[in-house]
Amino acid sequence: MSRQEGEESNRVADETSAEDRLIATYFRPLATHPGAFGLGDDAAAIAPPPGCDLVLTADGVISGVHFFADDPADAVARKALRINLSDLAAKGATPLGFLLSIGLPSGLPADWLKSFAGGLGEDAEHYGCPLLGGDTDRSPGAITIYIAALGTVPHGGMVRRKGAQPGDVVVVTGTIGDAALGLLLRRDAAAAGRWRLDAATRDHLLGRYLLPQPRTAMAQALRRHANAAIDVSDGLAGDLAKLCRVSAVGADVAISDVPLSAAARHAAAAEPTLIETILTGGDDFEVIATVAPDRFEALRQEAAAAGVPITRIGTIEAGQGARFRRSDGRALAFLRPSYSHF
Amino acid sequence: MSRQEGEESNRVADETSAEDRLIATYFRPLATHPGAFGLGDDAAAIAPPPGCDLVLTADGVISGVHFFADDPADAVARKALRINLSDLAAKGATPLGFLLSIGLPSGLPADWLKSFAGGLGEDAEHYGCPLLGGDTDRSPGAITIYIAALGTVPHGGMVRRKGAQPGDVVVVTGTIGDAALGLLLRRDAAAAGRWRLDAATRDHLLGRYLLPQPRTAMAQALRRHANAAIDVSDGLAGDLAKLCRVSAVGADVAISDVPLSAAARHAAAAEPTLIETILTGGDDFEVIATVAPDRFEALRQEAAAAGVPITRIGTIEAGQGARFRRSDGRALAFLRPSYSHF
Repeated sequence: MSRQEGEESNRVADETSAEDRLIATYFRPLATHPGAFGLGDDAAAIAPPPGCDLVLTADGVISGVHFFADDPADAVARKALRINLSDLAAKGATPLGFLLSIGLPSGLPADWLKSFAGGLGEDAEHYGCPLLGGDTDRSPGAITIYIAALGTVPHGGMVRRKGAQPGDVVVVTGTIGDAALGLLLRRDAAAAGRWRLDAATRDHLLGRYLLPQPRTAMAQALRRHANAAIDVSDGLAGDLAKLCRVSAVGADVAISDVPLSAAARHAAAAEPTLIETILTGGDDFEVIATVAPDRFEALRQEAAAAGVPITRIGTIEAGQGARFRRSDGRALAFLRPSYSHF
Repeated sequence: MSRQEGEESNRVADETSAEDRLIATYFRPLATHPGAFGLGDDAAAIAPPPGCDLVLTADGVISGVHFFADDPADAVARKALRINLSDLAAKGATPLGFLLSIGLPSGLPADWLKSFAGGLGEDAEHYGCPLLGGDTDRSPGAITIYIAALGTVPHGGMVRRKGAQPGDVVVVTGTIGDAALGLLLRRDAAAAGRWRLDAATRDHLLGRYLLPQPRTAMAQALRRHANAAIDVSDGLAGDLAKLCRVSAVGADVAISDVPLSAAARHAAAAEPTLIETILTGGDDFEVIATVAPDRFEALRQEAAAAGVPITRIGTIEAGQGARFRRSDGRALAFLRPSYSHF
């Protein structure tokens, strides 16, 4: 071999990194924003829309904590993105893009990442929230997926947790408790029998746990009408209490007004203590909002036009804490009012 | 007990979550940006500086992968933030703030989080990069710390990996290889004896692995003069090769011109094969930049004024790949040119 050939073969050509190949194969197709530079740089650069504030949130999912290691990889990806989109929606923000940091243990099935990236790409396109950059690491144990999402609102327009006023109507989107019941079913398949659920009803609850449906369609109506909002990730009771605390108000909720799916009603009829799970279990990814009484109807109509049912569940009042009244007028005492990791 | 008292005691008052208390105690003091709302909301809202692009990067550290589980918690926090600040610096960006997602196993020492937040807060203040929000979870295994950092550049001003031109001078900040040698020492304390290092020299190398020194002071000079830049996280050889690939050029580097600390020179003299570790080991968090020959002196002077030594190590040329020449003129053949997690 001549010296010239030896030198050429000794060039470092950046074709040897499995990490780079993995990124190029699975994640580059998702980086459709020009400022992501096809993931071929250390950072993304984006020009924020003039007159807008950036809304920033970060949320992660870890196998064994937020999802099951044998959940379908595409659903895991969708959940990781959607829980962040749910935060943006509750804040009235339009998605702009996201950063993904993923830690993968060795020994994942060969097609896991392909499925993960496929689900993520479909959601990124559907919700108009392209991949902007991130980080891929080997994890010593669990699968860890962290997303930081960016959205925009007109300057000063983010819907805050703070801002609820005594007299406001408390509303919630969709139905509450399905995901928490779905999680119980995922852990204990026999519960479907105890709750006398047919297969379709059981699958509805399992699906609500597996795949959140972020209320992105509500963002504009919330910006126009809501005094305060929060998405329901740690349970209706606990998240409403958080909103009340920072707003320095109380809330009075009639449990019978909390919207339940037919599946949840069925389960709660069979096992009445499930009402605590329904109200505190979390993972609903619905939105709680408070709205002045004279804006409620406008909010309801705009939400309906966006395809989102909302239900009036109570009232903001002076004081502190959220009270959940039973049909006999007494407040329900929760054993564990809100989900906490600690 | 009267009904009234019963109702009051049954209010959900959002004082029961250990997760919220943990965030309030340790992380709220770091959220000095008004748009972080004292971490009391689901998201941050910031008005980007007019005329600026946002520069976005995300990087994480995992115990057992990027740091040792018994590393001091404050140093772990600083490393997690600084590796992101290093990316921003290489892109010419001024830090704006960061999101933190942290996964904590049970059984951490009680003062771990206090020390972690203390180190993070000091660095956030020192580098002008406040905490904007994030997420705290229970981790089933390793400590995981993911940061997404935001910076700003004048519109269109991000320094890209792409842009190196044949004829450009290749420069690097500081010294190369110290952190990789420090990692070897951390894993094999006896190496200090084989390399005939005194305690101060050994500690210098250990310190360079434990605590990166991001080149934030270089950002403006890079924006003004560099054609391309990348920070050295996966090793000088591999990261220069990445820059060359996206710029569609080659590079010729004289190994004898690569700046080494006295400690690294000492170790390499005792064990010559360490030169491969030095050039490919990574974790340097220095900056490689390419600059037109007639801008080199201006870059050098502005870097020196900012307190950053830079060294000319080679030249960009037509072709592809990075060649590292030994003193006999032959190119070094690397066994493993770049760090990869996969």
